[in-house]
Amino acid sequence: MVDETGTQGAAAAVTQPLDEAECLRLLAAGGVGRIGYTGRFGPTILPVNFALQDQTIVFRTGQDSPMGEDLRTGIADAEYKVAFEVDEISPATREGWSILIQGSAHHADSGTELAEAQRSGVQAWAGGEKDLFIRIVPARITGRRIRRAAAG
Amino acid sequence: MVDETGTQGAAAAVTQPLDEAECLRLLAAGGVGRIGYTGRFGPTILPVNFALQDQTIVFRTGQDSPMGEDLRTGIADAEYKVAFEVDEISPATREGWSILIQGSAHHADSGTELAEAQRSGVQAWAGGEKDLFIRIVPARITGRRIRRAAAG
Repeated sequence: MVDETGTQGAAAAVTQPLDEAECLRLLAAGGVGRIGYTGRFGPTILPVNFALQDQTIVFRTGQDSPMGEDLRTGIADAEYKVAFEVDEISPATREGWSILIQGSAHHADSGTELAEAQRSGVQAWAGGEKDLFIRIVPARITGRRIRRAAAG
Repeated sequence: MVDETGTQGAAAAVTQPLDEAECLRLLAAGGVGRIGYTGRFGPTILPVNFALQDQTIVFRTGQDSPMGEDLRTGIADAEYKVAFEVDEISPATREGWSILIQGSAHHADSGTELAEAQRSGVQAWAGGEKDLFIRIVPARITGRRIRRAAAG
């Protein structure tokens, strides 16, 4: 019988939850993450380059981009709910970790907020004008690590 | 002045859209993708191992997992709207591609459907009982490739 990890008895997967401190430690390196939200065509996921700043996620997009527009509720002080996912998974060993942040997307529009977001040093992955800084304030941070253990 | 690609003049980013045929060609290799949907805690993104079968995405989860439950509408024939993202991005060169599929998540529950989904050979990334097969039927497939070009 093929076991449920799909490795036919070679190694069973062990899943461990990551606590918030460990998630923040892993996120501190920045890099590529993926933002998820409900946009004009339904649920949407797009990769962005991010930085961690004061336990929040900062990334850049275009003021007039579909994402920049989608993430505005049009109501002052009402912020869009988003997901932000970061992972590091080895296809070879099928070990790795993933982190999920759930929270609100805040447009860093004002002078002070914009200056602070710019200090994160985050750069956009794609080209074009990316002068809109978005800050995600986590309401919930969860993560897990997957390791392989020899099967019994 | 720092250019908008963040590479300070070294190389500008060129973004090209990928057509559907090219997206399907890139997806054919399978591997790790990320499913996005609105769950009990709001927008959610989780990595899963997937296979491409007949231009649909097949992956596995647990029948009683939070994701398996979240992706049921509780209404017969009404399917959950989801996003599915796959990317390959080099942190070193900051070149790569990403693909976004938007569509419905169908639980492959019936005998015929389950047998067909099992034939995809997809294995779950994490351990545990992953005997629920979910098939995403794309309503919309979009993708883009990012390359670096020497700045003028």
